Amino acid sequence: MPRGVPAVIPDDGLTTRQRRNAPVLAVHTGDGKGKSTAAFGMAVRAWNSGLSIGVFQFVKSAKWRVGEETVLTRLGRLHEETGEGAPVEWHKMGQGWSWIRHDADVTDHAEQAAAGWREIRRRLANEVHDFYVLDEFTYPLKWGWVDTGEVIETLTTRPGRQHVIITGRDASPELMDVADLVTEMHKVKHPMDAGRKGQKGIEW
Amino acid sequence: MPRGVPAVIPDDGLTTRQRRNAPVLAVHTGDGKGKSTAAFGMAVRAWNSGLSIGVFQFVKSAKWRVGEETVLTRLGRLHEETGEGAPVEWHKMGQGWSWIRHDADVTDHAEQAAAGWREIRRRLANEVHDFYVLDEFTYPLKWGWVDTGEVIETLTTRPGRQHVIITGRDASPELMDVADLVTEMHKVKHPMDAGRKGQKGIEW
Repeated sequence: MPRGVPAVIPDDGLTTRQRRNAPVLAVHTGDGKGKSTAAFGMAVRAWNSGLSIGVFQFVKSAKWRVGEETVLTRLGRLHEETGEGAPVEWHKMGQGWSWIRHDADVTDHAEQAAAGWREIRRRLANEVHDFYVLDEFTYPLKWGWVDTGEVIETLTTRPGRQHVIITGRDASPELMDVADLVTEMHKVKHPMDAGRKGQKGIEW
Repeated sequence: MPRGVPAVIPDDGLTTRQRRNAPVLAVHTGDGKGKSTAAFGMAVRAWNSGLSIGVFQFVKSAKWRVGEETVLTRLGRLHEETGEGAPVEWHKMGQGWSWIRHDADVTDHAEQAAAGWREIRRRLANEVHDFYVLDEFTYPLKWGWVDTGEVIETLTTRPGRQHVIITGRDASPELMDVADLVTEMHKVKHPMDAGRKGQKGIEW
């Protein structure tokens, strides 16, 4: 229950308040479950604090995290209806990002990933959201579809107070180095090891 | 993206469907963040699948996870209003479980924890919820306030199709041994190491 007690007081010239308000860059990596689920839980909590949410899923399958998408976009509609929480946008690469016309030339996964990153970079520059989830974003970085150096430059110089959570296996040391919070989810035991298939409500 | 492809087909006499429908006992342990947040994310997803939720927080502070509590109980009210999702109950030890009268004798934390477990055992026997989160439950087990052997016996013989997620550091080998899914959240880097305090919307 680590709340409120910092381990050291840094000599960075900032006040406690400035440090408290510093935007967070978090990375959830490792071979275990819970990377995306914990990021999603953080987004729901941020929504409750009035932070606007932008989720960007760098996955091919349109079905990935559809339960989370349903709930978070439902919370976004709840905001529109009642003013509770904050706005929510959920974008997925799937068969193509929503802001790219489906008959466009961008059908290649590498190009789609690069287009997704360009849009996120644009939104960060314009401070569009308060809280970004870049789900499974480590993979386009790992595969070189998006340049890690440029991502790090963009993230470390992002304006304002925008929180960014990146999930996926094999986060690079360079990315972890600039992150404020890095958690590795480690698989100790998984039902599929015992031959069980995933099930609705539990796995997705 | 581990969906649908089991690593081995077990020789347990069950059909794939029986195995798919087997209730899950999951443990989130380790020194890192995300244990409770991922359990909360799973609960939100389960809610979306129509599974009724019971959260039991084995913590002293009434403020712990108040954001999650707000959202999940809000989803419970949404179910009452619109029929979406499923019912939600959120109980916390805090200054005493809601089902125990506040002027009662149970003011000792060990006794409160034991009373919490007795209620969960009763609910499991009566199949009250579909999805249970026993948040920070490893601590009363570790401290001997609740008997690990009895918990394991109760969980491994629970009737019906009730999913149970247990969170907290230092889960015992005995508990992990009977769990279907064990994930260890490992802290690689934390903002408080750099002297930052937690902040609303991010840490709680």
